[in-house]
Amino acid sequence: MTFPGSATPVNTASAATREPPCTTAQRGEIAVALPMRHAGVQAVALRYELQGPADAPVVLVAGGISAHRHVSASAQFPEKGWANELVAPGRTLDPARFRVLAFDYVAADGRLDVPVDTADQADAAALLLDALEIGRLHAFVGYSYGAMVGLQFGARHPARLRHLVAVSGVHRPHPYACAWRALQRRAVALGQLQCADAAGLALARQFAMLSYRTPEEFGERFDSAPEIVNGRVRCAAEDYLDAAGAQYVARTPVTAFLRLSESIDLHRIDPAAVQVPVTVVAVEGDRLVPLTDSVNLVEGLAGRGQLRVLRSPYGHDAFLKETDRIDLILAAVLRGTGAAA
Amino acid sequence: MTFPGSATPVNTASAATREPPCTTAQRGEIAVALPMRHAGVQAVALRYELQGPADAPVVLVAGGISAHRHVSASAQFPEKGWANELVAPGRTLDPARFRVLAFDYVAADGRLDVPVDTADQADAAALLLDALEIGRLHAFVGYSYGAMVGLQFGARHPARLRHLVAVSGVHRPHPYACAWRALQRRAVALGQLQCADAAGLALARQFAMLSYRTPEEFGERFDSAPEIVNGRVRCAAEDYLDAAGAQYVARTPVTAFLRLSESIDLHRIDPAAVQVPVTVVAVEGDRLVPLTDSVNLVEGLAGRGQLRVLRSPYGHDAFLKETDRIDLILAAVLRGTGAAA
Repeated sequence: MTFPGSATPVNTASAATREPPCTTAQRGEIAVALPMRHAGVQAVALRYELQGPADAPVVLVAGGISAHRHVSASAQFPEKGWANELVAPGRTLDPARFRVLAFDYVAADGRLDVPVDTADQADAAALLLDALEIGRLHAFVGYSYGAMVGLQFGARHPARLRHLVAVSGVHRPHPYACAWRALQRRAVALGQLQCADAAGLALARQFAMLSYRTPEEFGERFDSAPEIVNGRVRCAAEDYLDAAGAQYVARTPVTAFLRLSESIDLHRIDPAAVQVPVTVVAVEGDRLVPLTDSVNLVEGLAGRGQLRVLRSPYGHDAFLKETDRIDLILAAVLRGTGAAA
Repeated sequence: MTFPGSATPVNTASAATREPPCTTAQRGEIAVALPMRHAGVQAVALRYELQGPADAPVVLVAGGISAHRHVSASAQFPEKGWANELVAPGRTLDPARFRVLAFDYVAADGRLDVPVDTADQADAAALLLDALEIGRLHAFVGYSYGAMVGLQFGARHPARLRHLVAVSGVHRPHPYACAWRALQRRAVALGQLQCADAAGLALARQFAMLSYRTPEEFGERFDSAPEIVNGRVRCAAEDYLDAAGAQYVARTPVTAFLRLSESIDLHRIDPAAVQVPVTVVAVEGDRLVPLTDSVNLVEGLAGRGQLRVLRSPYGHDAFLKETDRIDLILAAVLRGTGAAA
């Protein structure tokens, strides 16, 4: 176990000085018939984005359930991506050196209303590689739900992957985290009871935010006394939570949230079944993935697993926030596998 | 700082062998005009229960927002109380040796729909002592919200109290815990939108349960795979959460929950204002009261505070679960103050 500390990242360019990459990016949509674990064969559209030179090693990047195919800005698609600080010139995942692939999760468009397993997502990724004629991924970098999908990919399609980096996601959802998500789905159901779908989804997202972040962060950001507004107590964090709920509702179909939230809880894999080298990145203070579960995963992987532990006030969201430290880990892994000279 | 370990409690009688106490208990209701911090003077009925010999030292026991005046079983009121394992023959709080007083919190009956401060509860307790002609409490034992009320009592009525034991409640609510409660109140509001008050309150309680307990406990109790029921994923903890919600809804007016939940968030007191000796009992792993806040409270109390720390898989609910260890602490405190020979 190693603890990447506060050493100066070797590879960092600040967000302010970073130029938009001049690499090419393309988007596409591929229709597939996907045999699903709990729902038979379903017709599914796989929407992907691919950025970087055609002859570079391919890295698939997969995020949490609200992530999507647009990982980072490019000349063609200049809007900010969900991992804009990690996939960028000057970073390990420089799209001039790697070809970065990402896809919208099956069910993310809200059109597929059946139980979705992480195994289904892994099989969808394999079908996508077939269609794009990519034989083998140099690496699969998965965060949260994406780490779970990556573990399934490493178990079901090991020949198509050199190395997996699994950040803040392990072989099973923790029972406490399952309960937390089940209640979020109940908030949605309560909203749906009265055609207040948006209100229910916003509340679900707000509760989810508490699981993604930490008391330490809230303690620093929202330490002022509550106000009494119209005879009701309003806490300091409520403006932040309102914004988080509204932003999520604007971009997320209710059905997509429900099915992908369920999908996390359906995830369950024997670590021994994962047949590729895995770097497991755990965050101390992650309220969804306890460190003990990451340790158990690495033990189950036997010689194929190595553990890196971060301490972060951002908890489960550290991947999106501690980008300098995550980049250091990616640098060690991707250099260690012999590519990216 | 001391860590009461797993030493055999000196004072324990198992629940199975404990006899119902033969001490007398009485209940009453006293009408008072209560000047409230945020709501002017309100007519309030104070409902109390008092158990034990008339000449014994009086100990006020105050629990969480869902606690009430019936702390423990007696000949007159034989049903189980909310702290039945702590106030019992053979325990430190033996009703043959102490006179145990408890009251229903102001607003707990759901009839008072205004912001309620912990200072209001402390003043209500003082009015109750007046009415019962009790000059001074031997001790105030408060748990969770009751600890907050006890701190206010020690600041506002120090002459009426020898010693405060504040368990799992400190001088302020933590901002993260405030956010958690604010969202619970939003669940109630979502239910109220269309007369699904019970469903909203049940969901609020279920979310609250996650804050009272710990991942460790859930990991041990609910570690089985989810089921797919009617096309929906159902997690292992959901039966437990259903029961917790239904039980709470059956006994709690919605308004009482809202106003007492708010009251926790309104609580805020300068530790230096508390003018009595305080034993602060903190639980490592409490998801609502971080250990650092308990340490800050003790530092603020200067020479008047001492800290005891428990480790417990029950988190915030340790007071109700780790009764042998809590009893050891109470024994040390109540003997140390020279009573209870």
